[in-house]
Amino acid sequence: MEQILFSGVSAVTMDEDVPVRPDSFVLVSDGKIVSVSDAPPPDFTGETIDGRGKVLMPGLINCHTHIPMTILRGYADDYDLQTWLTKYIFPVEAKLDGRCVRAGALLGIAEAIASGTTSFTDMYYFCDDILAAVEETGIKANISRGTSLFTEDFSFDSHEGCVDMRRLHREWHGRDFGRIRIEASIHAEYTSNPRLWAAVGEYAADNGLGMHVHLSETRKEHEGCVAKYGATPAAILDRYGVWNTRAVAAHCVWVTEPDMDLLAERGVNVSHNPVSNLKLASGIAPVPALLAKGINVALGTDSVASNNSHDLFEEIKTAALIHKGASGNPRAVSALDALRLATVNGARAQGRAGECGRIAPGLDADLILLDFDRPHLVPCHNVLSNLVYSARGSDVVLTMVRGRILYRDGAFTTIDLGKVRRELDEYVLPRLFG
Amino acid sequence: MEQILFSGVSAVTMDEDVPVRPDSFVLVSDGKIVSVSDAPPPDFTGETIDGRGKVLMPGLINCHTHIPMTILRGYADDYDLQTWLTKYIFPVEAKLDGRCVRAGALLGIAEAIASGTTSFTDMYYFCDDILAAVEETGIKANISRGTSLFTEDFSFDSHEGCVDMRRLHREWHGRDFGRIRIEASIHAEYTSNPRLWAAVGEYAADNGLGMHVHLSETRKEHEGCVAKYGATPAAILDRYGVWNTRAVAAHCVWVTEPDMDLLAERGVNVSHNPVSNLKLASGIAPVPALLAKGINVALGTDSVASNNSHDLFEEIKTAALIHKGASGNPRAVSALDALRLATVNGARAQGRAGECGRIAPGLDADLILLDFDRPHLVPCHNVLSNLVYSARGSDVVLTMVRGRILYRDGAFTTIDLGKVRRELDEYVLPRLFG
Repeated sequence: MEQILFSGVSAVTMDEDVPVRPDSFVLVSDGKIVSVSDAPPPDFTGETIDGRGKVLMPGLINCHTHIPMTILRGYADDYDLQTWLTKYIFPVEAKLDGRCVRAGALLGIAEAIASGTTSFTDMYYFCDDILAAVEETGIKANISRGTSLFTEDFSFDSHEGCVDMRRLHREWHGRDFGRIRIEASIHAEYTSNPRLWAAVGEYAADNGLGMHVHLSETRKEHEGCVAKYGATPAAILDRYGVWNTRAVAAHCVWVTEPDMDLLAERGVNVSHNPVSNLKLASGIAPVPALLAKGINVALGTDSVASNNSHDLFEEIKTAALIHKGASGNPRAVSALDALRLATVNGARAQGRAGECGRIAPGLDADLILLDFDRPHLVPCHNVLSNLVYSARGSDVVLTMVRGRILYRDGAFTTIDLGKVRRELDEYVLPRLFG
Repeated sequence: MEQILFSGVSAVTMDEDVPVRPDSFVLVSDGKIVSVSDAPPPDFTGETIDGRGKVLMPGLINCHTHIPMTILRGYADDYDLQTWLTKYIFPVEAKLDGRCVRAGALLGIAEAIASGTTSFTDMYYFCDDILAAVEETGIKANISRGTSLFTEDFSFDSHEGCVDMRRLHREWHGRDFGRIRIEASIHAEYTSNPRLWAAVGEYAADNGLGMHVHLSETRKEHEGCVAKYGATPAAILDRYGVWNTRAVAAHCVWVTEPDMDLLAERGVNVSHNPVSNLKLASGIAPVPALLAKGINVALGTDSVASNNSHDLFEEIKTAALIHKGASGNPRAVSALDALRLATVNGARAQGRAGECGRIAPGLDADLILLDFDRPHLVPCHNVLSNLVYSARGSDVVLTMVRGRILYRDGAFTTIDLGKVRRELDEYVLPRLFG
């Protein structure tokens, strides 16, 4: 693979000591970051990308989404959760097929790449179609097949979700040198029972797979669990071994103080999804407290049906704002904290800490370049402030994963967006809404 | 002036009965909206703008900002209000001159126009320089000179702010057939006293000028007033005649139930500034309650130093989200409600209800066109949902005020942005920070 040099760029390395290095030269070779220096490497002959007036940072990591639901963007807003699910979302999802899912995944991935996301963690079904979209677009992803169980009757060998999980693990896990990973998933405590928890937990731990679970998203769900089991969702799932592996607990809006201690002790990662939590009126997750406990908090958009965007820059700003407003403390989540959620912490939650989330020699070149030469980013007293409080996903002018450019100046190199849109118009929308 | 026809466009008219009209033809002539129809007007010979895949809506109205402070974007974030003001903002503001203010105003107006704002309400000083920027850029504005008073010694005829206000009123009010308006302003209860309130209130009422005041922004300010006067800011200002004219009360985070009744009874408009209120940890204004009282609530960004953006699409989404999350009611502020704040209600708060804020024959052609043919706006099940939850200011491809195109496809027609940036680099930043 050819070498690429970003020259004269403001590099947001996310290094603990020096998170921003102005006027830097970042060399990428064979998909890896080779060096970050104050001068161009001698005798460089590859492509130079002029970084003056631009900011280079690690690609953003979206730790909780259901990417095929992009086809439901704006379909049903401003309803209470029960009406939203039962009257709108479930009836449409019942008509889904793999072809719809693939088109939705391609559209969602296009949106994600164009707004600076280089890796995402997903939970859905028809996973082969999502994986095909991930494979062809070049983005990184941790993909899981959400499982649920509403009966006492259970066999791991015949449960559809478990069968799927095992097959996906066998066929897809580690594809393209680890760009694609399969995770185990239990949809949530309230959509399953201990038989499933124990079986999926054991499978994940035995096979070193990650785990992805919705946890204490709504008050109703949290309190319903306490009423049913005499224990919170975090505690009851722990009892059945669900946290015996690297896990992402999505939402955690209603977790208690003892829950936080438990999550910290078990090293469970939290995906904070502030926009979705506000939109569905679920509440505001106790992120400052989670961080104070030493829990690794990452960031997610949740599905576009409850956001309605895959733009992590929006999520970063919302995360930086909402906890200040809710706590009365203007220092609650700083700009640097908010950027960490979407980069360093996201990589760790995905089990990719040694691979991406920072700009450092030896890591994958999962990088995004933002044009800071636009009115809403002028002046630039502080790169971190402008990134968090003023930038938008549309300021991204280049997205690369492992040194491969997937998006540049508005154009995708791996996605035929016109074709995706025709598929939507000719097949997906008529099937679901015709 | 030549005629312009938007053809085949989704027109968000903000009409009470039919807020969205797909596949419409909107004719603009001599600065006014002439017609909105389902077919092109016969024998049309002017310029046609192809509106297919695009959304035309009323220009957004920003009802509370301090536009020159754009030069302080990202200068001091994540501090508590007292540190922020005394250690960072006031010392820099002490070095300001008219030339700095004019450059900041031009930069802020450029940002506003590029993200779809066609009118704004401002409070600052060096107003002649702000007004010069407004005049040359073609945007609409209600400009006020903030006044304060910290002594008992007061004379209307020699108080610098009052002298300024009178002169601005005489020289600028109604300029360009009402495009520019002057308003009276009392900075806030806590930065002044009854002598100023009575005098400025009387001047505004006698001269039919609007009034612009910060009201109950922080808990400290609100409770300090109660401790000092035995009355809330809303009540004590009322006693001195401040609400005897069309007024905009900015923030209103801590207003009480009786305050709301008073504001409703006196017809005071509220500018809701949710991002600034979160960022400075002021709190969350009781917007659903204000609306239920029948109060006209508009939307503002506040200054870029506490936001850090003039993009009203962000503010619209935040307004739609935050009250759902804070109240636990996912229907608290609907998408249509949120759009009303930034259009119809904004026009009313500015005293421009008969002039703009909707798409209707006879109104000024203050219009913006958004490109909906972008990945993050596909599919489009609902135009209002996509506008509120998925669109960004950068989706605006055309901004016109009174039929005059100020911005199109990334280019300004009245602002030389390169010149503004050179002025920043060569004069403003060295003067303030050099």
